[in-house]
This record gives sequence, C-alpha cells and structure tokens, in this order.
Amino acid sequence: MDIKQYMTELGQQARQAARVLSRTETSQKNAVLLKIADLLIESTPKLIRENNKDLEAGKNNGLDDALLDRLALNEDRIEAMADGLRQIASLPDPVGEVSDLKYQPSGIQIGKMRVPLGVIGIIYESRPNVTADAAALCLKSGNAAILRGGSEAIHSNQAIATCIINGLEEVGLPKEVVQVIETTDRDAVGELITMPKYVDVIVPRGGKGLIERISGNASVPVIKHLNGICHVYIDDQADQQKAIDIAFNAKTHRYGVCNAMETLLVAEQVAEQILPPLAEQYGQKQVELRCCPRSLEILNGYSGTLIAASEEDWDTEYLAPILSIRVVANIDEAIAHIGEFSSGHTEAIVTESYSHSRQFIAEVDSSSVMVNASTRFADGFEYGLGAEIGISTDKIHVRGPVGLEGLTSQKFIVFGDGHIRQ
Amino acid sequence: MDIKQYMTELGQQARQAARVLSRTETSQKNAVLLKIADLLIESTPKLIRENNKDLEAGKNNGLDDALLDRLALNEDRIEAMADGLRQIASLPDPVGEVSDLKYQPSGIQIGKMRVPLGVIGIIYESRPNVTADAAALCLKSGNAAILRGGSEAIHSNQAIATCIINGLEEVGLPKEVVQVIETTDRDAVGELITMPKYVDVIVPRGGKGLIERISGNASVPVIKHLNGICHVYIDDQADQQKAIDIAFNAKTHRYGVCNAMETLLVAEQVAEQILPPLAEQYGQKQVELRCCPRSLEILNGYSGTLIAASEEDWDTEYLAPILSIRVVANIDEAIAHIGEFSSGHTEAIVTESYSHSRQFIAEVDSSSVMVNASTRFADGFEYGLGAEIGISTDKIHVRGPVGLEGLTSQKFIVFGDGHIRQ
Repeated sequence: MDIKQYMTELGQQARQAARVLSRTETSQKNAVLLKIADLLIESTPKLIRENNKDLEAGKNNGLDDALLDRLALNEDRIEAMADGLRQIASLPDPVGEVSDLKYQPSGIQIGKMRVPLGVIGIIYESRPNVTADAAALCLKSGNAAILRGGSEAIHSNQAIATCIINGLEEVGLPKEVVQVIETTDRDAVGELITMPKYVDVIVPRGGKGLIERISGNASVPVIKHLNGICHVYIDDQADQQKAIDIAFNAKTHRYGVCNAMETLLVAEQVAEQILPPLAEQYGQKQVELRCCPRSLEILNGYSGTLIAASEEDWDTEYLAPILSIRVVANIDEAIAHIGEFSSGHTEAIVTESYSHSRQFIAEVDSSSVMVNASTRFADGFEYGLGAEIGISTDKIHVRGPVGLEGLTSQKFIVFGDGHIRQ
Repeated sequence: MDIKQYMTELGQQARQAARVLSRTETSQKNAVLLKIADLLIESTPKLIRENNKDLEAGKNNGLDDALLDRLALNEDRIEAMADGLRQIASLPDPVGEVSDLKYQPSGIQIGKMRVPLGVIGIIYESRPNVTADAAALCLKSGNAAILRGGSEAIHSNQAIATCIINGLEEVGLPKEVVQVIETTDRDAVGELITMPKYVDVIVPRGGKGLIERISGNASVPVIKHLNGICHVYIDDQADQQKAIDIAFNAKTHRYGVCNAMETLLVAEQVAEQILPPLAEQYGQKQVELRCCPRSLEILNGYSGTLIAASEEDWDTEYLAPILSIRVVANIDEAIAHIGEFSSGHTEAIVTESYSHSRQFIAEVDSSSVMVNASTRFADGFEYGLGAEIGISTDKIHVRGPVGLEGLTSQKFIVFGDGHIRQ
C-alpha cells in the first residue's frame, strides 16, 4: 500500500465531500445523525464482537487494565454513543448564521456569515466512542472528517465507521463525508498533518505526548489541548465554607480529568483557619498532600500522606489523588504563581471581595477564569455548548471548550444595490 | 552581535511588557497614541532627514521608482500617519468586552471576555508608515509588538520608533511595549517566527514571496494575507447598468490593490448585450483584455489590446490594467470557476435574482462575498472596523479584513456563588 497516495486520495475525496456538505440542509444532516444512532444500536452484537477482537489483542499486547477499560464497548456504552449523536442532532446548526449585519456610510450592508472550516482531521487514542462523537460534531458543523483512531481500537473503529457510512448513504450524502483511515501505519498520520491542501485543521485528542508530537510536525493548523494544571486560590476575603466546598470538589470530584485542580493556593491570612478542616475532608479520600514549608507546618498531623513539595510539583499535572498546596502572601502572589506555572486551562478564585474578583478575572490569562465556582465546571456541556471536541489551551482561533462553533469560521457578506467605490 | 540572544531578549521583554499592557486602562492607551501622533508631527524635519538617508541608499542600490515612492516620507504622509494614530485612539477598546453572559442550568453564569493575544510580530516591507500603524493597532488591542521593517527603510523606521518609545515613556508605559528590531540581519526574522514562547502570532505584510517564505518556516501561527484573485460574475438576471458600473469600478478604481477584480465572468445569455458597452469604458482606460474564445468573438474590434486568454490567466493576480474575461453558461459554471481559481479573497455577483443571490452567498467560499457591490469595498475602513492590519485569506482565527478584534482572543469567565459540580 502506498501510504502517500492513499492519504492524498482520502484528502481529495474529503475536499469534494466537504463542498457537498457545506450546502446540505440542516434537516438532512440531522437525519444522518439519527440514522447513524439507530444503526449503532442495531449493530450492538457486531460492535461488541469486533471490540472483543481489539480487547483480545490488547491483552496479548499487555495493555494495562485502565487502557483496556477505556477500549471496551458494552451495551450501555453503545447506547451512550447513540444518545450523543441524538443530542448533537438536537443542537442548533451553526452554519449560515448571520451576525452584525449593518449599513455602512457608503450605503453597503455588511455582516458575517458562519461557515464550515472544510476538512477536519481528528487523531485520537483508545476510546472508540470518539469515532462517533467526532464524526457527528464535524458533520453537524458542515465539515468533512478524516479520522485516525489508535491501532489498538482498529476493529471497533472500523465497525463504527461502517454504521456511519451506511447512515450517510441511506440519507443520500457522499460516504466520503466521514472517512476512517484503514491502515495502522504511522506514516498515515505524518501525511494527514502535512496536507494543508486537503485538510484545514487537525484536532488531536489524547495524551500530552501525542499532542506535542503532532503540533511539532504539523504544517496544518492544530487545535491543541495540552495539559490542565488548574489552580484554586483561596483569597484572604474568602467565605470559609465556599472555599472548602470548592477546593474539595475541584480535587476529588474526578481525578483523571483535565479540569481537576492540581495546585491549591491559600492566602496566608486565612491558611490556619481553612487548611485544617479542608485537609480533614481530603484525608477521608486519601489525597496525598505535597506542601510548601508553611502549609506543611499548618497541616502537621494530617491523616494521609503529607510530604514537602519540590519545585517540580508546581509544574505537574497529577491526574491522581495528589494535591500540591502553597501558602501565598496575597492575591498578587497568587496571580504571579499562576502566571508562572499554569498551563492556561482553568483557574478559580474563592473570594467575597469585589476588587479581588475583578483583579483575578482581568489578570489571569487562562482559557477559563472563575469566581467562587469549581474548576470542574470547565466543560462544553456545562458551558451550554451542547458537546465538545476538546478544550483548547491555544489563544488562536478557539479557546476553552470547543463546540460546534469552534469548528467553523466566518466570512463577510456584503449587500449592495449597484454600489461602487468612490 | 549574537542574533539569537538579541531576539530572545526582545521576546522576553515583549512578554513582560504585554502583561503590563493587558491591564492598562483604555484612557492611558489612547493617551500614548495621541502623544505619539504629536511627536511624529514635531519630528517632521528629523523624519524627513532620516528618510532621505534611506532614499539615497535606495537609489544607490537601484530600487525602482515605485519602490522609492512607497519608501518616501513627506509632510503630508507624516500628517496622515499621525491622523491614523488619532483615529485608532478614537476607536472603542476591544479588550475586556464581555459577551454572551448567561446562566446555565447548574446555576453558574458563563460568558466570554475579549483579551489581547499577547505578543505580535509584524514583518513588513518598504512603507515606513506601517511602523506607526502596526504599533498603534497592537497597542490599542493590548498586545506588545515586535516590528521588523525592510532593510531599505531602516533609518526611517528607527526614527519613527524613537517617537513611539518617547510617547510610551512620557505616558508611563514600558518602552518594550513596541520594539523595532535594530538589525537588518535576516536571521532575526528566522528567530522571530520560531519563538512561540515569546511571540503569539506573526502578521506578515508584503508581497506573496515574503508571506510564503514566512508561513513555510514559522512555528508561530501566521495571519496570512496571500494574493487577491477577485472575481465579478455578471449573472443572466443582472441589471445591465449596475453590471457595467460594478465591473468597471472593480477593475479600474485602483489597479495595484488586492481587492481589484482580476477576472470577469459573464453569463452567456447577457454577454452580447453587456460586454460591448463595458469594453468601451475599459478602452478609455487602456485596459488590456484577455478573453476566452466566446468573449474574444463578442469583443472583436475592441479599441485596446485584446488577446486570447491562456489557462494561466485565470490563475494570475495582475495588479495592473489587465483583465481576463470568460463567458460561462450559468451561475453554476461561474461558481465552479471561482472554486477552482479564486484565492479566497473577494467575489461579487451582479444579479436581480433572489435565488441566485442566495446561492452565490452560500456556495462561494471566500473571505468576502458580495451581491451588487464592487469588490473594492473589501477593506477594514469600508467595513467599519476602523483600521486594519491586513486582510486574512486564512479560515483559522480571523478571516477578511483584520481590525482590532482580529488581534484579540477570548477567554471564558464563570461566576458562581460557591457552586460545585454534582
């Protein structure tokens, strides 16, 4: 198989399919999504059979239990995948939306119309449900998709792809609207990320290693979701109960997610009152605390593991029941710490001070900045975007949770009545 | 001089200055702009003196008259530069604007706040006024700027830079908010476009060669302005007078600009009525016509130069009194021609048909799509953006004329009252 030729063909077909899709009516796009949902449910036995092949191979290749769990499909997960498609079908269509249509002094009327980006390449690991989710988000936003899943999920992904293709054909759209790369050859990724003629943007979904590898080599723009080193700062003007609730929730609600808090900053003035009762709650969840000298002193006697933080801790995304804690003099020191160590994902302040809330919102430069709310809210569903393809820690094009709108662009539209430039 | 070290220092200083600028109040930013405008006027004799050094060197190096004209400063041009700064001072500040602030079912309130990108690198050729324009647009949008002008304008640019630095210092902002690269060494550009740690986006302003060289090598995102192969399509339902006015204006209002029409498409059904009177007007301006076989036939007897178009003509940005003309069967053939040959800048249809106007707007994928208006309107001032740093032919981040808003990003802001994720 000539990988370069194969990928070029996929690219050309995607470009053509994107043209058709860009002028497909909303009702037809929704019909495809609902049809694919039905086909997934109908294909449950086949999907589980194909998934078993991947699970077998994974066990033989020594994948760990966590990875095998992410790879596994069962009736509930297939039902959830179908529900996801139905939900995307129910969202408003972003394509064609016109905003800011205004007359200018010359007499022409100018506005912006939302349009698809064109062709989106998605590169992801293990979870086969991404195949359906990503395809649906691209389709609804009018973009053709080229999907490249992990080699460990190849049979599952192909089985899901069959449902997608059948759904497209039954509703009368070109099957090349969604293409799943059939080879596990790594060179296919190398081609995909260097075909700006055929691919408009790459969305990598996976670990930091995958994303750095792709952004380092891509000539196509990449919507990056790097790591989430999220901070909660408990201000000297914080309400104690809110502070404890938010800091507890942000760390322990789920550990392995990018919007979990990894570092807690506490103002010196309230550290002695707030840290001990908060630590009592962390102790019940066996959270390991890695502390600055001052918090180490205050938390002496903690029921769980308590160790001194190293410089490296401030820079680490644990994704585990581990928390680094630092006592800071005031809000300025907190903002400076965040400026130095944050990954630009999500930071929260707990405060009752009007001035401090405004300062934090203005000066913290992350994709989400929160006042008196848990960092765990940083999520496309919670933000009302309906669904998300990832969370962008970039500042260019789209930032924060990326929903349908993040997968579109805008063009200017101009209405005249024979107007010429004077 | 160690270029790498020099550029790293500029980058670090810009990053620090950007932090200060991001929280500078609107009134102070405006005060700097007005101060720089005054200093430019006061420095007129010095600016002209320094500019003369560049003009002398340019003549000795054999620059052609057009380039020397673009390089030249005089009292009027310095006055225009100062006026440009005053106009940017009068525009609304995009930074801090909050939009879409809404409550979600969880009870948290979510919106988007507009924020600066950070540090912007501008690379440009010959015209020294870009130094002041680009610095002002970056400053007003809260971004630190690193400017790299052409070596042929080095003395003029440094003299303008002195006014900018003095303005910043007099108003009490760090002088590193705007830095003009002092060396003409080409390696400085290579460094600038590969320092993603210190530079958030690159805006190249200049010819196609410059832009392709930079986008090919940059690891920092580039807001690209490539060429403008703009089309006007005269539909079979066009009003004859509007068609002639628009096609004449779009070609002859100015030749050397990216929004001038380069190819005229005419529906077969009206070609015989519209082309001859239109050609009579082109003849008065000595426009050279390069025609498809059918239009060649219709325009036989044209008073100016009339030749057969080659395939290459459809792909050429003339920037000159030359126009390619093609007769097409209908709107579908026109849209297909545009899809194949357009550079994605600006296209216009002339029609009285409701359906054709909607089809053209929906199906033509360019940064500006117009109905019954001259392509010459594609411009930041005409669109009400107040000023522009270029016209983006990209689809990622910003498209069409790039004003202050295009130099910003957004972050999500979240207000809670102790809310935690359930």
